[in-house]
Amino acid sequence: MLLVMPEDLRSLGEFGVIRRLRAMTSPGPGVEAGIGDDAALVRFDGAALLTVDMLVQDVHFDLAFSAAEDVGYKAMACSVSDIAAMGGRPRYAVVAFGAPSSTELTLVDGVLEGLRTAAAEFDVTLVGGDTVESPVLTISVTVAGEPGPAGSILRSGAKPGDLLCVTGATGGAAAGLALLRRAATDPRSAELLDRCPELARAHRRGRARAREGLAAATSMAHAMIDISDGLGKDAAHIAEESGLGLRVLAGNVPAAEGVVEAASIAGTTPERFAVGGGDDYELLIAAHPHDVDLVRDAVAPTPLTVVGEFRAGTERTVEWSDGSRDALENVGWEHHA
Amino acid sequence: MLLVMPEDLRSLGEFGVIRRLRAMTSPGPGVEAGIGDDAALVRFDGAALLTVDMLVQDVHFDLAFSAAEDVGYKAMACSVSDIAAMGGRPRYAVVAFGAPSSTELTLVDGVLEGLRTAAAEFDVTLVGGDTVESPVLTISVTVAGEPGPAGSILRSGAKPGDLLCVTGATGGAAAGLALLRRAATDPRSAELLDRCPELARAHRRGRARAREGLAAATSMAHAMIDISDGLGKDAAHIAEESGLGLRVLAGNVPAAEGVVEAASIAGTTPERFAVGGGDDYELLIAAHPHDVDLVRDAVAPTPLTVVGEFRAGTERTVEWSDGSRDALENVGWEHHA
Repeated sequence: MLLVMPEDLRSLGEFGVIRRLRAMTSPGPGVEAGIGDDAALVRFDGAALLTVDMLVQDVHFDLAFSAAEDVGYKAMACSVSDIAAMGGRPRYAVVAFGAPSSTELTLVDGVLEGLRTAAAEFDVTLVGGDTVESPVLTISVTVAGEPGPAGSILRSGAKPGDLLCVTGATGGAAAGLALLRRAATDPRSAELLDRCPELARAHRRGRARAREGLAAATSMAHAMIDISDGLGKDAAHIAEESGLGLRVLAGNVPAAEGVVEAASIAGTTPERFAVGGGDDYELLIAAHPHDVDLVRDAVAPTPLTVVGEFRAGTERTVEWSDGSRDALENVGWEHHA
Repeated sequence: MLLVMPEDLRSLGEFGVIRRLRAMTSPGPGVEAGIGDDAALVRFDGAALLTVDMLVQDVHFDLAFSAAEDVGYKAMACSVSDIAAMGGRPRYAVVAFGAPSSTELTLVDGVLEGLRTAAAEFDVTLVGGDTVESPVLTISVTVAGEPGPAGSILRSGAKPGDLLCVTGATGGAAAGLALLRRAATDPRSAELLDRCPELARAHRRGRARAREGLAAATSMAHAMIDISDGLGKDAAHIAEESGLGLRVLAGNVPAAEGVVEAASIAGTTPERFAVGGGDDYELLIAAHPHDVDLVRDAVAPTPLTVVGEFRAGTERTVEWSDGSRDALENVGWEHHA
């Protein structure tokens, strides 16, 4: 009997991966030289936004919970979300991809397919990359984008009296991960994941608010950030960069569907998931109270909810529904913590 | 007695690393928003070059042979070299940095210091980054650059009859690594490393030919690439992308100082190091025979040596001094091979 070994990365080689990537992508508008040269040459008129995110296996994702396509998709979506949070339009991406030599080709192809799917969804052209050996799957995606027509929205633009608003609903990614970790041994978790597939999807892929970010920037947003570390921590970033205090009311934060049940299963409160959970990629937007409706109209049909208020000073707190308070910067998720 | 634990990354946290990076860098020309926002906002007029490289501990460097500063320096220099190989000018960088939580802060600071040193040397402004947990030190540097005044030099521009030229001398990085691996047990290797410090430096830091790449592009270069995988493999890339054959004479390839002795110690030939060794970051340039002196003048005082000739066809070979031949694409170093 012939022993059929799965084809692995060793049999394909670095240049094989690059060829594969090249075959999967097509030249986009503005790309004068794409994959296959020392660097890509792309058009930019006046200014560019640059951002990078790195996802590491068993830190940001677990292949027991996420398919390879999810990993590739999320790696691209994280960086797209950063461009959105500046009010810009993502245009080009370069990808650094590390994997063990023994990685099966189906896994590599899955990651590339996920990158391609996200790139197509967000209108990003993959223009270059590097592929290397590494002990675990490691994907770093750099996205270059264009500022929106109204300029870029920084974290530092909030004014005293501005309201803090959030798009969509939060806590879904953290709740999804908590359920995925329990599902093998806990039928309630498995049942809830079946009933609310959006919870697992929120963890696996995130939701980059590319349209909403651009739209908010052309309305009256003063400051903006995407939620990657948790609403609390990321709201604190806007307040710090703007030199202001901030009071967030946890009871006003809209929890994603299924988060209430997930919190009950996980032995925590929905507010903890909604304020402290990371990876949601919803946008936090600071706007003058008179302008909140303009921002709401701009991001519609995605909901926009007021969750806090900026004030002079340095007190940055979240008030939980039970009356207790925490420092905002302690509510969220941090690497190396 | 008080047990003093070394301060590690856990005590600093992700935002601590970003603050440290921010404190180490200053806003550069063209930077409208740098480290500390969702994305950096930089000026570009017309076009941008984008490239990324990833370095992984125990794959691309060994902390027994390289200091943390070397690792940071090399991570930046690799990407600068890619921009140089397009004939462009490096401008901005974003860095993704992965490390175990237990990493000592002196190591983190060393890597940051190396990045900063290389950025200053090559006139690059560090504008953003991401820091994450990972099982080994992993550094991905994306550099965005401007095309040179004469446009970009692709790999695909070589013409039949063009000569293949190389800047400087090659084989030093591979020879240096071979000696570093032997030095602990072999006094001859240790002595040669002492006598030719450039060999270890070539492995540890590389030599990005930023000035030479820009200068060659404004002379009459038809095609250009930097040597990261070995002269043989990288020369084959130019030939393939240009749809040409190529004959390289190994005896003409200038070996770096000390490579002859290192080859004798390592039981190989100097030609194998000079043609097959990776990580040299010298530039390979294709030019019309009448224009080689123009290119030589442009890159001076760095030497330029003719090492091969492009021809119609698909035969791409290196001829060793002993009369034997190999396919060029097999002479070099490949990941996942």
